[in-house]
Amino acid sequence: MKPLEKIQTYLVSQQIDAAFITSPDNVFYFTGFRSNPHERLLGVVIFKEKTPLIICPKMEVPDALAAGWSGDIVGHQDTENAWDIFAETIKEKVGNIQTLAIEKAHITVERLEAITDRFPAIEVSRIDGKINDLRVIKSEEELVNMRKAAELADFAIEVGCKEIIEGKTELEILNAIELAVKEKGAFQMSFDTMVLSGPKTASPHGTPGDRKIQKGDFILFDLGVVYNGYCSDITRTISFGEPTAKMRDIYETVRRAEETAIQAVKPGVTAMELDKTARDIITEAGYGDYFTHRLGHGLGISVHEFPSITGVNDMKLEVGMVFTIEPGIYHPDITGVRIEDDVVVTKDGVEVLTKFPKELIIL
Amino acid sequence: MKPLEKIQTYLVSQQIDAAFITSPDNVFYFTGFRSNPHERLLGVVIFKEKTPLIICPKMEVPDALAAGWSGDIVGHQDTENAWDIFAETIKEKVGNIQTLAIEKAHITVERLEAITDRFPAIEVSRIDGKINDLRVIKSEEELVNMRKAAELADFAIEVGCKEIIEGKTELEILNAIELAVKEKGAFQMSFDTMVLSGPKTASPHGTPGDRKIQKGDFILFDLGVVYNGYCSDITRTISFGEPTAKMRDIYETVRRAEETAIQAVKPGVTAMELDKTARDIITEAGYGDYFTHRLGHGLGISVHEFPSITGVNDMKLEVGMVFTIEPGIYHPDITGVRIEDDVVVTKDGVEVLTKFPKELIIL
Repeated sequence: MKPLEKIQTYLVSQQIDAAFITSPDNVFYFTGFRSNPHERLLGVVIFKEKTPLIICPKMEVPDALAAGWSGDIVGHQDTENAWDIFAETIKEKVGNIQTLAIEKAHITVERLEAITDRFPAIEVSRIDGKINDLRVIKSEEELVNMRKAAELADFAIEVGCKEIIEGKTELEILNAIELAVKEKGAFQMSFDTMVLSGPKTASPHGTPGDRKIQKGDFILFDLGVVYNGYCSDITRTISFGEPTAKMRDIYETVRRAEETAIQAVKPGVTAMELDKTARDIITEAGYGDYFTHRLGHGLGISVHEFPSITGVNDMKLEVGMVFTIEPGIYHPDITGVRIEDDVVVTKDGVEVLTKFPKELIIL
Repeated sequence: MKPLEKIQTYLVSQQIDAAFITSPDNVFYFTGFRSNPHERLLGVVIFKEKTPLIICPKMEVPDALAAGWSGDIVGHQDTENAWDIFAETIKEKVGNIQTLAIEKAHITVERLEAITDRFPAIEVSRIDGKINDLRVIKSEEELVNMRKAAELADFAIEVGCKEIIEGKTELEILNAIELAVKEKGAFQMSFDTMVLSGPKTASPHGTPGDRKIQKGDFILFDLGVVYNGYCSDITRTISFGEPTAKMRDIYETVRRAEETAIQAVKPGVTAMELDKTARDIITEAGYGDYFTHRLGHGLGISVHEFPSITGVNDMKLEVGMVFTIEPGIYHPDITGVRIEDDVVVTKDGVEVLTKFPKELIIL
């Protein structure tokens, strides 16, 4: 059963007239149509029984059809009130709906008011959890795309390593990586590529700049590539010149934490157990205060999605879940190190999508 | 008076206890701190009388301080409930607030519920309009950044023109542009750069790909550069090889519409009058059906902000407003052409920020 039909089944079981889905990633998940509408109205209305409906800017109607959409579609122009068109189209199609499921974690208060102004008696419920339950388990078709996205991420790290030459800036290395990825095809990066060197590695969210790399630096790459709408996300830290003993110790601690956590992945283990596996190793090595973020995050159409691998999430891992494992130590006086892979939970344990080596590379 | 103080004055005048501002662009506007928190909680609470407060992920606290923030700040970790920290901090600081202004066009239904769960008696109002009123008028300091962003956009178009060689793909040209911009410094593009050629110019929202440019193509560049947090946005369409008479006619019609609209910019003119100025020229030339979008959009910290230059907006232009003027004709059988500049309303009329020539360039 396709995701869209699963939502219809859910609506029937819950006696909900329709679901209105407006986050671009979820619209893509259910329709195959990828669009960034900025402030304009884009959404798919899934009805209990009738044909589903896309509402989008009129100029994007051809793009939705080209993406293979075979349901109903209505376009709106900048000179029209999109919410009036939304309400009229629904009323024509199914009459005055009584119950509507929305994405409460995405839809704004203003938009909900635009709906309740036009359907004053409507009862609103949340559909987020149901959609997350579907998206969190990847189909084989989705995994094919994610494997390819991960392969491209491995390639990007390889390019990054080849670009390491004394005196180059972080940005020059970053540009060379992105150019090489784009030359392989019309790929987007999953997020702003990160190339950080020396002391800048100690900031988990640093910004690449014109710092020139120099011997003795650790260099941290964090990047991802989008393939057919699916994201990868990888981090590798390498050494430019001989590292000090303390730098080595931090590197090997992170590596051990990362590899041990990966080995612990299997159905039935909870997210918090997994987080603890890595965190305990780092804490026992004396670096606990410097591992300041969760172990990982779900990955798929969005670069951050469910499940969240934190110390407070008691959700059990299931076959088909995809997430990152990315412990880090950010020591302001020594160096930062993060190592990150994308993994899938399998019947027998784990499949690691990103494959770039993790032995400390010294260039 | 600084924007943050203007909001405090507004809160006092309206007897509102606090404003909670969560959109990253507005947080940057009021605090100077630029962050993309993904799903994590980031916001600034502006109180009627007390020192304002940033709440953000704990690992970003140093970044906020480095950005010059001198108010209060509280960090939250992934293992903590950020909303509990939000509520506790506010209660410690000012007690049980009764009234709160929020950005209804940004805050999600889920987040509002997280607030009302913790402040059940709270009365919520919208602050969006007030913030838009502030942001829509640029200060001289903001204009300095926008002039520089526009200069970088002009430079990017110049690079694009130099890269036009038979057989190059749209993506190769795009990459060369972005590389050249980045080499000037650590600049971000305002949005995904667009390089479209031949028939692809007829799609207002097309995606650059591996199509090779060939003689007889029009080539459309749409791009922008971010400087110190401020965006530019420019479009130029050039001819590779000799254009046909029909292509020339479309080009000159768009150019005439664009230049006439720019000449019409001055305080007191309405957005809809401006839209009509350009649209009438295109309609009279017989291409009205192929100009499928509004004339322009506001520009600043966001690449799309207020004011919206549409046929239904009766807002009067005021000194200090910045927006794009970007008429286009998208003829599926001939070509697409769009020309776009960024303009500021001045006391005497208009200042055009983007300066790249508009005579049809034939390469």
